[in-house]
Amino acid sequence: MITVIHTINELRTHIKNYRDENKNAQIGLIPTMGALHKGHASLITKSAQTCSLSIVSVFVNPTQFGVNEDFSKYPRTLEKDIEVAKEAGANIIFAPSAEEMYGKGYSKDFITLVCPPYDLVNKLCGKTRTGHFDGVATVVSKLFNIVQPDYAFFGQKDAQQLYIIEKMVKDLNFNIKIIPCPIVREDSGLAISSRNQYLSEKEKEYASSLFKSLSAIEKYYKQGIKNTKALFDTAISMLAKEAQLEYLDFIDYENFEKTDIIKGRTLIAICAIIGSTRLIDNIVLE
Amino acid sequence: MITVIHTINELRTHIKNYRDENKNAQIGLIPTMGALHKGHASLITKSAQTCSLSIVSVFVNPTQFGVNEDFSKYPRTLEKDIEVAKEAGANIIFAPSAEEMYGKGYSKDFITLVCPPYDLVNKLCGKTRTGHFDGVATVVSKLFNIVQPDYAFFGQKDAQQLYIIEKMVKDLNFNIKIIPCPIVREDSGLAISSRNQYLSEKEKEYASSLFKSLSAIEKYYKQGIKNTKALFDTAISMLAKEAQLEYLDFIDYENFEKTDIIKGRTLIAICAIIGSTRLIDNIVLE
Repeated sequence: MITVIHTINELRTHIKNYRDENKNAQIGLIPTMGALHKGHASLITKSAQTCSLSIVSVFVNPTQFGVNEDFSKYPRTLEKDIEVAKEAGANIIFAPSAEEMYGKGYSKDFITLVCPPYDLVNKLCGKTRTGHFDGVATVVSKLFNIVQPDYAFFGQKDAQQLYIIEKMVKDLNFNIKIIPCPIVREDSGLAISSRNQYLSEKEKEYASSLFKSLSAIEKYYKQGIKNTKALFDTAISMLAKEAQLEYLDFIDYENFEKTDIIKGRTLIAICAIIGSTRLIDNIVLE
Repeated sequence: MITVIHTINELRTHIKNYRDENKNAQIGLIPTMGALHKGHASLITKSAQTCSLSIVSVFVNPTQFGVNEDFSKYPRTLEKDIEVAKEAGANIIFAPSAEEMYGKGYSKDFITLVCPPYDLVNKLCGKTRTGHFDGVATVVSKLFNIVQPDYAFFGQKDAQQLYIIEKMVKDLNFNIKIIPCPIVREDSGLAISSRNQYLSEKEKEYASSLFKSLSAIEKYYKQGIKNTKALFDTAISMLAKEAQLEYLDFIDYENFEKTDIIKGRTLIAICAIIGSTRLIDNIVLE
């Protein structure tokens, strides 16, 4: 059984009753923008294994989209999402309207925002998506305050988002444990994403070259090459010529700064545009 | 009995145990920067009347002070604060270090900040105190997440701060009820403030003219004068010439915008510097 809830008050009441009736309740939150796929399902399954109650939020958050981005055309498939979430073990779907979340006639200029530090934001996706991570941090804070979960589950595919959320939880003292979950891939290696829906079959083939590039880096790194310039060139040679590279960066996980030499734990993140679809992928080398 | 706690973990454990043992617990938080006076005592008393457990935080928050402000000389009187808080009915004092709150070697540039909307910030005290309200909203968010109180008590003396916190609670969906508490005054009318300690006897006399100015406005308003220009001139004539006016503004409480004519609920806020001490006061006309 899965319960679908659309208002904050109703969700709060439901959670309060659940906590009152279950002394050892452990609540898991999986924040999503819907269009649920196998990646989301893996987060939900992880929550269902860890927690006594799993809540999936489905909300296409307007404050994290730029003016020229795909907010209006972003896929909205609630009926299907309910099935996917139920199948994966969710107990509650929270699917509020934008008005419910931000109030009537809201504007991003007139709301309190949660702003991650500039140094984390001004790279990778944040460089072209101005204000994106303020929107993400704000909506995740709101969901954290509404649900007050014990655990929250995020995919490693959005590596910068994950890093920023972990930093936010630490900086603002949210009493919530963040559980990162591995990227789920198609057989071709293509990282599963809601935006893959935009791709033709041909484009999917080009898109799979993002992971081929990352895999080449991993292979050469394991052969002892640690200079990121050399690894970069190797990766680029694997990328489909139809893929327009936005970035391919080597980030030291310790301080989230770009690095020339792979020392410790390193995030290698790629972003490319195929046709009109912007795709991201990454691997972490330990 | 009052318990003094210095670490976040210890406070969380204390609160968790308290909630586990008291099914109908109602927790009140009174965030302060210490140097507790009758104004703070009135907030604590209000909390003790409303809640089953009252927690006073005493923390001179570095992120809300500008570089040229009085952070280092701000009064720190923890022993006396403990007595005042106990007397007023507090159960717990939470007095963390800056390192406990922000981590070792923290910098405001490298932490997640909670940023109230520019339109609320860029007036009254925020106009000269750049970044002040980001610091306030951030530390209050942190305290809210650490304590997770049912109620939080704020003085109306810091009217802009109160407005911003109420907006933040709404925008970020904190599940906390904000209780505004009236300004407490000396017999002279001077609003009680920790910064009054900086004033000589003579300066206190000049300082009392801030409230005399506000009272003149109230008097003339009640005689039917609603034009803020006329009310402004009246007020200025009552202000000690030793007081250097920073602002005297009429703010419509509905949208927190300046207003020329008093219509609905209106905040009249004054700020002046006496000697080297910056003082604020306000009244609200309904």
